[in-house]
Amino acid sequence: MDPIEAISRAVNSQPTATVDLDRHRRCGFPEVVFGQGKSIDQLRGILATLVASGEDALATRIDAEQAAGLAVAFPQGRYNAVARTFRIPKKKLAASSTAGSVAVISAGSSDLPVAEEVRETLDWMGVRVTMIHDVGVAGPHRLPARLAEFEHADAVVVVAGMEGALPSVVGGYVACPVIGVPTSVGYGANFGGVAALLSMLNSCAANVAVVNIDAGFKAGYLAGMIATRRHPTPDT
Amino acid sequence: MDPIEAISRAVNSQPTATVDLDRHRRCGFPEVVFGQGKSIDQLRGILATLVASGEDALATRIDAEQAAGLAVAFPQGRYNAVARTFRIPKKKLAASSTAGSVAVISAGSSDLPVAEEVRETLDWMGVRVTMIHDVGVAGPHRLPARLAEFEHADAVVVVAGMEGALPSVVGGYVACPVIGVPTSVGYGANFGGVAALLSMLNSCAANVAVVNIDAGFKAGYLAGMIATRRHPTPDT
Amino acid sequence: MDPIEAISRAVNSQPTATVDLDRHRRCGFPEVVFGQGKSIDQLRGILATLVASGEDALATRIDAEQAAGLAVAFPQGRYNAVARTFRIPKKKLAASSTAGSVAVISAGSSDLPVAEEVRETLDWMGVRVTMIHDVGVAGPHRLPARLAEFEHADAVVVVAGMEGALPSVVGGYVACPVIGVPTSVGYGANFGGVAALLSMLNSCAANVAVVNIDAGFKAGYLAGMIATRRHPTPDT
Amino acid sequence: MDPIEAISRAVNSQPTATVDLDRHRRCGFPEVVFGQGKSIDQLRGILATLVASGEDALATRIDAEQAAGLAVAFPQGRYNAVARTFRIPKKKLAASSTAGSVAVISAGSSDLPVAEEVRETLDWMGVRVTMIHDVGVAGPHRLPARLAEFEHADAVVVVAGMEGALPSVVGGYVACPVIGVPTSVGYGANFGGVAALLSMLNSCAANVAVVNIDAGFKAGYLAGMIATRRHPTPDT
Amino acid sequence: MDPIEAISRAVNSQPTATVDLDRHRRCGFPEVVFGQGKSIDQLRGILATLVASGEDALATRIDAEQAAGLAVAFPQGRYNAVARTFRIPKKKLAASSTAGSVAVISAGSSDLPVAEEVRETLDWMGVRVTMIHDVGVAGPHRLPARLAEFEHADAVVVVAGMEGALPSVVGGYVACPVIGVPTSVGYGANFGGVAALLSMLNSCAANVAVVNIDAGFKAGYLAGMIATRRHPTPDT
Amino acid sequence: MDPIEAISRAVNSQPTATVDLDRHRRCGFPEVVFGQGKSIDQLRGILATLVASGEDALATRIDAEQAAGLAVAFPQGRYNAVARTFRIPKKKLAASSTAGSVAVISAGSSDLPVAEEVRETLDWMGVRVTMIHDVGVAGPHRLPARLAEFEHADAVVVVAGMEGALPSVVGGYVACPVIGVPTSVGYGANFGGVAALLSMLNSCAANVAVVNIDAGFKAGYLAGMIATRRHPTPDT
Amino acid sequence: MDPIEAISRAVNSQPTATVDLDRHRRCGFPEVVFGQGKSIDQLRGILATLVASGEDALATRIDAEQAAGLAVAFPQGRYNAVARTFRIPKKKLAASSTAGSVAVISAGSSDLPVAEEVRETLDWMGVRVTMIHDVGVAGPHRLPARLAEFEHADAVVVVAGMEGALPSVVGGYVACPVIGVPTSVGYGANFGGVAALLSMLNSCAANVAVVNIDAGFKAGYLAGMIATRRHPTPDT
Amino acid sequence: MDPIEAISRAVNSQPTATVDLDRHRRCGFPEVVFGQGKSIDQLRGILATLVASGEDALATRIDAEQAAGLAVAFPQGRYNAVARTFRIPKKKLAASSTAGSVAVISAGSSDLPVAEEVRETLDWMGVRVTMIHDVGVAGPHRLPARLAEFEHADAVVVVAGMEGALPSVVGGYVACPVIGVPTSVGYGANFGGVAALLSMLNSCAANVAVVNIDAGFKAGYLAGMIATRRHPTPDT
Repeated sequence: MDPIEAISRAVNSQPTATVDLDRHRRCGFPEVVFGQGKSIDQLRGILATLVASGEDALATRIDAEQAAGLAVAFPQGRYNAVARTFRIPKKKLAASSTAGSVAVISAGSSDLPVAEEVRETLDWMGVRVTMIHDVGVAGPHRLPARLAEFEHADAVVVVAGMEGALPSVVGGYVACPVIGVPTSVGYGANFGGVAALLSMLNSCAANVAVVNIDAGFKAGYLAGMIATRRHPTPDT
Repeated sequence: MDPIEAISRAVNSQPTATVDLDRHRRCGFPEVVFGQGKSIDQLRGILATLVASGEDALATRIDAEQAAGLAVAFPQGRYNAVARTFRIPKKKLAASSTAGSVAVISAGSSDLPVAEEVRETLDWMGVRVTMIHDVGVAGPHRLPARLAEFEHADAVVVVAGMEGALPSVVGGYVACPVIGVPTSVGYGANFGGVAALLSMLNSCAANVAVVNIDAGFKAGYLAGMIATRRHPTPDT
Repeated sequence: MDPIEAISRAVNSQPTATVDLDRHRRCGFPEVVFGQGKSIDQLRGILATLVASGEDALATRIDAEQAAGLAVAFPQGRYNAVARTFRIPKKKLAASSTAGSVAVISAGSSDLPVAEEVRETLDWMGVRVTMIHDVGVAGPHRLPARLAEFEHADAVVVVAGMEGALPSVVGGYVACPVIGVPTSVGYGANFGGVAALLSMLNSCAANVAVVNIDAGFKAGYLAGMIATRRHPTPDT
Repeated sequence: MDPIEAISRAVNSQPTATVDLDRHRRCGFPEVVFGQGKSIDQLRGILATLVASGEDALATRIDAEQAAGLAVAFPQGRYNAVARTFRIPKKKLAASSTAGSVAVISAGSSDLPVAEEVRETLDWMGVRVTMIHDVGVAGPHRLPARLAEFEHADAVVVVAGMEGALPSVVGGYVACPVIGVPTSVGYGANFGGVAALLSMLNSCAANVAVVNIDAGFKAGYLAGMIATRRHPTPDT
Repeated sequence: MDPIEAISRAVNSQPTATVDLDRHRRCGFPEVVFGQGKSIDQLRGILATLVASGEDALATRIDAEQAAGLAVAFPQGRYNAVARTFRIPKKKLAASSTAGSVAVISAGSSDLPVAEEVRETLDWMGVRVTMIHDVGVAGPHRLPARLAEFEHADAVVVVAGMEGALPSVVGGYVACPVIGVPTSVGYGANFGGVAALLSMLNSCAANVAVVNIDAGFKAGYLAGMIATRRHPTPDT
Repeated sequence: MDPIEAISRAVNSQPTATVDLDRHRRCGFPEVVFGQGKSIDQLRGILATLVASGEDALATRIDAEQAAGLAVAFPQGRYNAVARTFRIPKKKLAASSTAGSVAVISAGSSDLPVAEEVRETLDWMGVRVTMIHDVGVAGPHRLPARLAEFEHADAVVVVAGMEGALPSVVGGYVACPVIGVPTSVGYGANFGGVAALLSMLNSCAANVAVVNIDAGFKAGYLAGMIATRRHPTPDT
Repeated sequence: MDPIEAISRAVNSQPTATVDLDRHRRCGFPEVVFGQGKSIDQLRGILATLVASGEDALATRIDAEQAAGLAVAFPQGRYNAVARTFRIPKKKLAASSTAGSVAVISAGSSDLPVAEEVRETLDWMGVRVTMIHDVGVAGPHRLPARLAEFEHADAVVVVAGMEGALPSVVGGYVACPVIGVPTSVGYGANFGGVAALLSMLNSCAANVAVVNIDAGFKAGYLAGMIATRRHPTPDT
Repeated sequence: MDPIEAISRAVNSQPTATVDLDRHRRCGFPEVVFGQGKSIDQLRGILATLVASGEDALATRIDAEQAAGLAVAFPQGRYNAVARTFRIPKKKLAASSTAGSVAVISAGSSDLPVAEEVRETLDWMGVRVTMIHDVGVAGPHRLPARLAEFEHADAVVVVAGMEGALPSVVGGYVACPVIGVPTSVGYGANFGGVAALLSMLNSCAANVAVVNIDAGFKAGYLAGMIATRRHPTPDT
């Protein structure tokens, strides 16, 4: 082939992402779209494919501009500007598809966007969520005051930046798995969330597992998986 | 007080560790002893307290010298030299205290000590374990060949050093939580397990959570917790 | 010399880069221009020199603004906006200058720009390319399904961000060199591609070599060199 | 000078460390000897100078072999093998030279050596000390149970390894300065105390300052300085 | 609950931060607002709550845009554009609420913003401040020339970027605690303040404690706490 | 199963590594044994399996003690104490199984062990090797003086510690792939080979690929693969 | 003092930097102004003070906006937009104030800004400069071809990004001190110049010293100091 | 060639290091032997070659065992056990071969070994040395008290571990080049000398250049080169 032709072909025929429609059967839930760095056209194509195959579509890391573009194509979609998620629910859904429940506990008000991403993910999975905000360790009376709200959850997600100490404390109160999500909230020797990440990895509580910095979706997905598998329903 | 007296007091009255005997009630399982850096005297004291209160005692990170010392005091104890665990089981235990099961998958033969620590922890929790060894990603045919052995587990623990890629691949095959344990196996730019740790934190599989490098106990504890809570019995 | 004069001289006489026209003879291929940080004037000068000496000119890391400036000077040039490459082919080129072929495999759709840079480089070298997209390890059935497309290549380039596990898996399937290109795709503890870089350096597959993060050109150049030298033609 | 002579001179005339006998007047306390890497001869010389000038001599980081050597020269000295300190008190000391008091709180039993170094330093400064052990955050009920023992201290030193979360929690309970000492206790992604250090530097509690990893002496010195200056006596 | 409803609820009911009004009683001073990343609405709400409860409100890390928004709501507030602090003093305050005093010493003119944040914090605590600027170690005659201004302070805060050597030198001149604040001033291998942070953590002066990079508020708070507790008044 | 039984089973039934005997067919060469951390028993077992199946067995990272143990079992084996390799050649081998050749260039005499590991690997693959030692960049006349020995190689392996600059210089002289092996030779800010690794990854020469620190086997394997595939023989 | 007054005072009385006019006498050259982060007002004040005291004023890290502001105040000043320096020479200067000379060698065209900062500094010191561009190690024939231009210099400054190998090679050719300046030119695992910095620190050439990343002024100052002290004139 | 023969050849024919006898002519001084990791045989060979060619031989990083071996072969040699250097001076040397002089200033007594390596190097070069010990910044009165001993040196070498602040302070007192040598002395967040290294690289003094951690030889060599070239004699 002539190189000039080769170049033209390169410019005109960028492949679109392939949607893994078998995922629901294999892993229990459909594929979720990671929006960061994707064009509106790419997002539109992927979401249309998911909707067409009857899935309850969820996209994360969607900024305001992407959301505006998607709102035109999917008027039934809902954008959560704090969580930066876009979701296109199926027309008919049962109010709740599982008896499972997850508590989402966050340390400070700056951790809210990640906590909201966790919640959106759990809502999408049909899991009941209890949100507990602003109970960071420097005000040590706050967390035990709310123990009744999270001690019987199927799993707890703890979202914290700065020194990331909250999962260790929560771990000492409960008998269920705790998923720690370090956030990039902080400054200086926080190194974009590394301080919180290391804190959680070194937790002296035995029941704390960790996901990537700011990985709200992943933490919600894991907690939701634990909850739904403990309370199976015909839907899941 | 006179400073010379003060010094003498310091030398003679080192506090012993306090055993948290309430842990079983609060968190579902008794405290496990982290042996690294503890003297045989300290270990003996803690284990005696646990045994006296009727717990099934487990100690991790026990080297050969510590084990020899403990074997004298607790002849009924069993030392697993590969896992470096020492366990003093209760006199009378049901064959299995739960219907739950966990698969433990390891990448290479050097990851065996950590995988064994996972297994000892799960045995201690009364959870059935399936061990799958030597299925690292460079021999890509090996893992799918054994899919039937792990696809229905309540949780999967994946132990891998070097590039730590195995949890991502396992994550794509199963619908349950995957706990990745990076090991310090490797050399050069492995940095004592950091390469594998970062790999697992950045896994493109949504169902992978991570624990500290070489933290076999923690991974086993989390997986066992998921399994026992999914199949509750009067014992747990 | 007077210092005021000295300053004026500094401002007015910035040296232009010297083009290494002997490179083709010494190393087999002409110099390729690294566009990042160069002004349009500098780029125009270097490319004009290459074209004048009869070379097939290629520039990488060319952004949209630079491309617009070059398009005026070189109307016969082609800009690949995804790969960010600008190429001015020689008037008369044989359809293909080698019987060699390289497979370029990428993990996710965000790795596309780097994969395209690899392809442009191989096209420029006259090497046949097979592009295989979206076969990341979390969907483990996808890669073996396409084995026939890459198992007989002279070399394989694998482009992957996140945990960078794909080269290890590919390495287990082929008997040829695998060049891994870590990309900066990811977030959090990805550290701009370091997680993928360490993964590839620690690959348990023996046939994986690594280049710098996002270094698509370098990987393509190495793979193309292996292919063309294995199938020598009068042109190379 | 002849080079052979020069070399001989180098070998024979290694300078001994100069003791800063003016330190007591300038900074409130005499110089403390950092023993690590010093020969027994060097230590003996420095301590003899301090004793001769009437100071209450303290040396830190003294291992068992150094201690044995010093015990011969200074039979009135006391070695604390846990804290690794050697102290030669003045013949006649008042029971306590200040009304100040400091609480030393440690997270786990492995943090004991550093906590003991803090205590030895405070004893040497004539400050009353309250030791509170084994109150790490994973057993969250333990710290508030002992609040009465530390809430009225002039300063609190908190010693913690692993995730280093304890100073943040203590900081939320008290109205005095908290000095955090990260310890190198831990494994894996603890990186020799870096995880605890970053945790403490990023503490969300406003009253937490930090010293180097394992720097028990420094933390004790700062806390003792705060306490003695708040309760000045003719001695200090 | 229906997922569409769930999403709407998420968008409309973001929680506002809870103000810890008990902090003044428990820790001696009211809560200070960390402005970075908060919306003007959030800031307005928190500050209004503090003002309504009779506190002397202080907010840090307030940029020009946030300040403009706050100036409308709180015309009695004062913005320090260098320190980036916004303060709403109580109507009636004694000229000075303590006899304590703190010296704030900075190395270079680029360290001024952090030094000003220290000063604003101390002013808010009612502590007298002495500012000493531009006495970095490369002009070694400058610091001792001003010894009389800081040698009798209750505490000294030293603000320095680049190599962060100043706290060690100051520590050698005084008998009071020195709080080092590394700043992010510098370039290249400064790594955003890490060079200065490590310098201060490794200070050979025994009386130097450290806070996070650019943490002017925290250093001022600690120094002010030491000063006010040494000179207690009915107000504090 | 009874837990005491379970423990016994763990102690007695450690799995042995599984030898991948299909590797020769799939990847062109049999599996090579990585000796580090393996017991003599494990090594003996694996090597016996390889020998029994007619393979030319090679083990790397074999220390003196392991070698002594293997020499008893395999008297026909040869230990290279510098390269730390143990090889058991097949009884009957052609003098050379390929027309390919590789040059191995090392910077300093401390890089010799890694260079020898490269050579052993190439010998095992039947590839002709040219060794060029002690041509580091600080003596810049040395490399060009030996150009004739490496300019026509099929591939060049460059072994260098310290600043790792040699691959870039070699890359400018040849038209073939250059595999850089950073070594851990050096001290201080060398960080165990990281300085050399980063140098090679950032090489301004387009034809330089990199392997892990001290990974002599991997570099030799890649270079040998390039050479044998360029000069195919019935044996390979 | 009233806190409201205190705040006003803070806003209105920011100290200006103090110019160290004694520097010329003490260190041989007047103070040079580091422009980064300084306002035009601050710069104007400092430069006016220097000019008034008869110094030959030089400011570095001056961006285009700052330069425009300074050009109005100092029409006799000269801005070098590549070096980002602003210089206000004394009315009457001898053509050259020293017989010393320095060679400035740079690796690639992107290193030009730093090389120009070196040159401006040397011009300001009255030292003759020889500029040698584009002689990076990947084109190894280029440097020796120009040996005559630098082998007799009093000192050589070598400016290089990417793998930073050039100073080691230059060091092998000369008998004078070589000052290496790593630049932040590169991408990926270059880490903003860290790769080049480590390369230079680990240079196997004994005569290579290093300055901070992009520190052109510092390298020029050191080289100029060596040159002028070797060839003293009445002016210096 | 038969592989068994190939292996034998590898074992028997390890190359010895090539001594660069042209170095004296090209760079002004003969090659210095870096002893670390070399066998006594290797060292003996290299030193014999140097002695035979009439050079004044110097070896650095020689431990006690290597020294004992060399003492037998070269009874005229002198071992400095603190500096870990072995030197074999020429039979007849002038008392001093240059009028140049260098001051070597060290911060603490643990920095002595590196300072001694600097001195040995300078003695070997025939440069007069002034040693100034124990003048670290925490005792700020000590350095200026000895100003007369170093202010007229041709160059100053400053050796410091911990926070590495001393070169910046020295830089402010002198008009000559300052070579900073960070040492690995310290603990915790010192990271084996990295804290001191970063401190020196970020020095606010313009006349400070840096060498690798513990690189006493390199610093001495550079300072000696500056001194000897400033005061040339027929010998150098």
